[in-house]
Amino acid sequence: MGFDAIDVIITKRERGALSTAQIDWVIDAYTRGAVADEQMSSLLMAILLNGMDRREIADWTQAMIRSGERMDWSVLDRPTADKHSTGGVGDKITLPLAPLVAACGAYIPQLSGRGLGHTGGTLDKLESIPGWRASLSNAEMLDVIRAAGAVVCAAGSGLAPADKKLYALRDVTGTVESIPLIASSIMSKKIAEGTGSLVLDVKAGSGAFMKNVDDARELARTMVELGTDAGVRTVALLTAMDRPLGYAVGNALEVEEAVEVLAGGGPADVVELTVRLAREMLEAAGVRGAKDPEEALKDGSAMDAWRRMISAQGGDPDAVLPRSAEFVEIAAPASGVLSKLDALAVGVAAWRLGAGRARKEDPVSAGAGIMLHAKPGDVVTEGRPLMTLHADETARFERALEALEGAYTIGQDGEADLLPLVIDRITA
Amino acid sequence: MGFDAIDVIITKRERGALSTAQIDWVIDAYTRGAVADEQMSSLLMAILLNGMDRREIADWTQAMIRSGERMDWSVLDRPTADKHSTGGVGDKITLPLAPLVAACGAYIPQLSGRGLGHTGGTLDKLESIPGWRASLSNAEMLDVIRAAGAVVCAAGSGLAPADKKLYALRDVTGTVESIPLIASSIMSKKIAEGTGSLVLDVKAGSGAFMKNVDDARELARTMVELGTDAGVRTVALLTAMDRPLGYAVGNALEVEEAVEVLAGGGPADVVELTVRLAREMLEAAGVRGAKDPEEALKDGSAMDAWRRMISAQGGDPDAVLPRSAEFVEIAAPASGVLSKLDALAVGVAAWRLGAGRARKEDPVSAGAGIMLHAKPGDVVTEGRPLMTLHADETARFERALEALEGAYTIGQDGEADLLPLVIDRITA
Repeated sequence: MGFDAIDVIITKRERGALSTAQIDWVIDAYTRGAVADEQMSSLLMAILLNGMDRREIADWTQAMIRSGERMDWSVLDRPTADKHSTGGVGDKITLPLAPLVAACGAYIPQLSGRGLGHTGGTLDKLESIPGWRASLSNAEMLDVIRAAGAVVCAAGSGLAPADKKLYALRDVTGTVESIPLIASSIMSKKIAEGTGSLVLDVKAGSGAFMKNVDDARELARTMVELGTDAGVRTVALLTAMDRPLGYAVGNALEVEEAVEVLAGGGPADVVELTVRLAREMLEAAGVRGAKDPEEALKDGSAMDAWRRMISAQGGDPDAVLPRSAEFVEIAAPASGVLSKLDALAVGVAAWRLGAGRARKEDPVSAGAGIMLHAKPGDVVTEGRPLMTLHADETARFERALEALEGAYTIGQDGEADLLPLVIDRITA
Repeated sequence: MGFDAIDVIITKRERGALSTAQIDWVIDAYTRGAVADEQMSSLLMAILLNGMDRREIADWTQAMIRSGERMDWSVLDRPTADKHSTGGVGDKITLPLAPLVAACGAYIPQLSGRGLGHTGGTLDKLESIPGWRASLSNAEMLDVIRAAGAVVCAAGSGLAPADKKLYALRDVTGTVESIPLIASSIMSKKIAEGTGSLVLDVKAGSGAFMKNVDDARELARTMVELGTDAGVRTVALLTAMDRPLGYAVGNALEVEEAVEVLAGGGPADVVELTVRLAREMLEAAGVRGAKDPEEALKDGSAMDAWRRMISAQGGDPDAVLPRSAEFVEIAAPASGVLSKLDALAVGVAAWRLGAGRARKEDPVSAGAGIMLHAKPGDVVTEGRPLMTLHADETARFERALEALEGAYTIGQDGEADLLPLVIDRITA
């Protein structure tokens, strides 16, 4: 095809719609190196500023999918379901959710990522379990799914390599914050993973990638359209990330909280969101006569699936998890009601304590993080602990405490002003 | 200074004004290679789409000037004047203009460029004169100016190297067509050349870089502001490029036409624009009691300056110039008045005949080009020659003739609908 990168750039620069053929060509040529980084980055900036319509975004996503392999779960005898969260602080939902939905009758082939910046990553959390392996071959994935009903592992490099290359470019060229590009990046990987149904947890608030609800809703709508256009039954919940999810923020700390949920306990918000997402996944997957998720948490079947899943990937579900040796408590400076606890500040503090990383090649500490002792809306008493900070070295506390300055407010007169846990539900 | 390329990109992406310090940093860091091509190209696209204000454009220009050397003509005992044309078809005005203004009392240190695409370049034209050298050292430039009053030569690579690097990047990333970037590119070189005064010939029409008059006026205004802000007395004429200038389009062909003008003859439009620009240059340079340019064309003093200038750069002013061996005539298909003769089509045809180049490293033919036998407004007779095409090889005629299809119209009822030769005059 006789396309030219400059013509494609100018089409978008002048607010035109890119044709399907132009998009196919430019993604393929960029992946092959025939379109240069500096050409793609000016195209990305033009897309960020001038947008793409629904058809263009679908074409862009399909072109990225075609740049690599596409997984196929048709050998499995149950419907498959997948869930993707746009990321937040204390978001350990995948950990109880995957075995829970498996226990209710769907197969969950879940490819997950690592944390970056203030948001944690599911693989980092699971790697705090001694022996657990994130990297599996496709054959091993099938074995784990058949044994446990669910597998959570690292995505192979063969899925949507164009997205990987594009994401690295966007990261250094100021072109990350584009809803069409964010949506196509997420959905190209999810669609390539071959799931039959997908539930999106799109977070809004200070600790989320999308700070405001309108942007989050637009992203959710765009991704639901993309999934639907690609033949994947897709639904999105818009959920709160103005405060952390649960009480635990950190890798091993979050695994422990997830296990509490699987044991029938755990924080109310984590349980509520896990159950809500589980029901959405079962419905999207079309599982008939499924066991109710609340029942599967109570009767131990979700916990059984978790133990099988962890064991099948080399992990010891009974192992004592690492906990950082050093800790500092923050006491409540006054009595009253905790009216604000900023998710971003808590996430940044946990990152600085060692739970997160600045660059994708950095290591993370399994035992570092923050345990909250109160959540917005709770009554707190002056001098009693508000949260405990854990780190491997005491030198990390100073900057973590700095991040928490002004992060919480204690009021005298009652209510916390929070987003509802589930703000909205978006369907095609 | 602790700047970050991504912050600079995001500032402009979000429609902010770049600070002076941000601009200084990003131009310097890009020139040094500390800001990558893919970062600069996304910034350039953000500038193209979101604009820059007058202060930002001035800062951008000054930063490019500071990336290299700045010439200094203060050793000369007469005012210096310079002229820049945005380029067109048949635009040989620099050739008679430089010696003419020198003959009237100013010094003309003129750094010129080569042609690209359908527009010709002054150096390519002069190089059709046997022996003439475009590359001079600074000391040689001074010698030629002192001998002839004017020098026309190639700009050294030391002037605004940031602009050179940026222009090459813009050329492949769809970021050429931005008035702030075009204006700063032109003016950084002109200001670095150290002239005390500058007259801009900003062309509008099909054969110009700016196709419509409003864009050309905006470019002219921006450049006049930039020159003024940099302390250079600057004025712009907005002139017609809907049809070719003069009758000759090609390298040696245009030199011959320029010599006719210097000899007191030549096409009326070329003479008129040359004289008009000469008067502007003398006024901008502040030459007191100057000889009138019309007088200097008649009394032979401009021709004398031309001969000294050509000789001082190794050229033979009496040499017979090359003429391509092959030619084709296009006859008028009807009798009437030539009402249209499209500048772009003629420029593209001349380029295809060998007078121009597609890439800056390509050679050009000295003897190829087009001689017009009629201009818009002239009466033509069916079967009589409308133009003659010259090329070194007959194989070139087919595609040149294709470019000319639909390029001219012969009407029965009178007037040609043309832009006025001088459309407007723009001052600070």
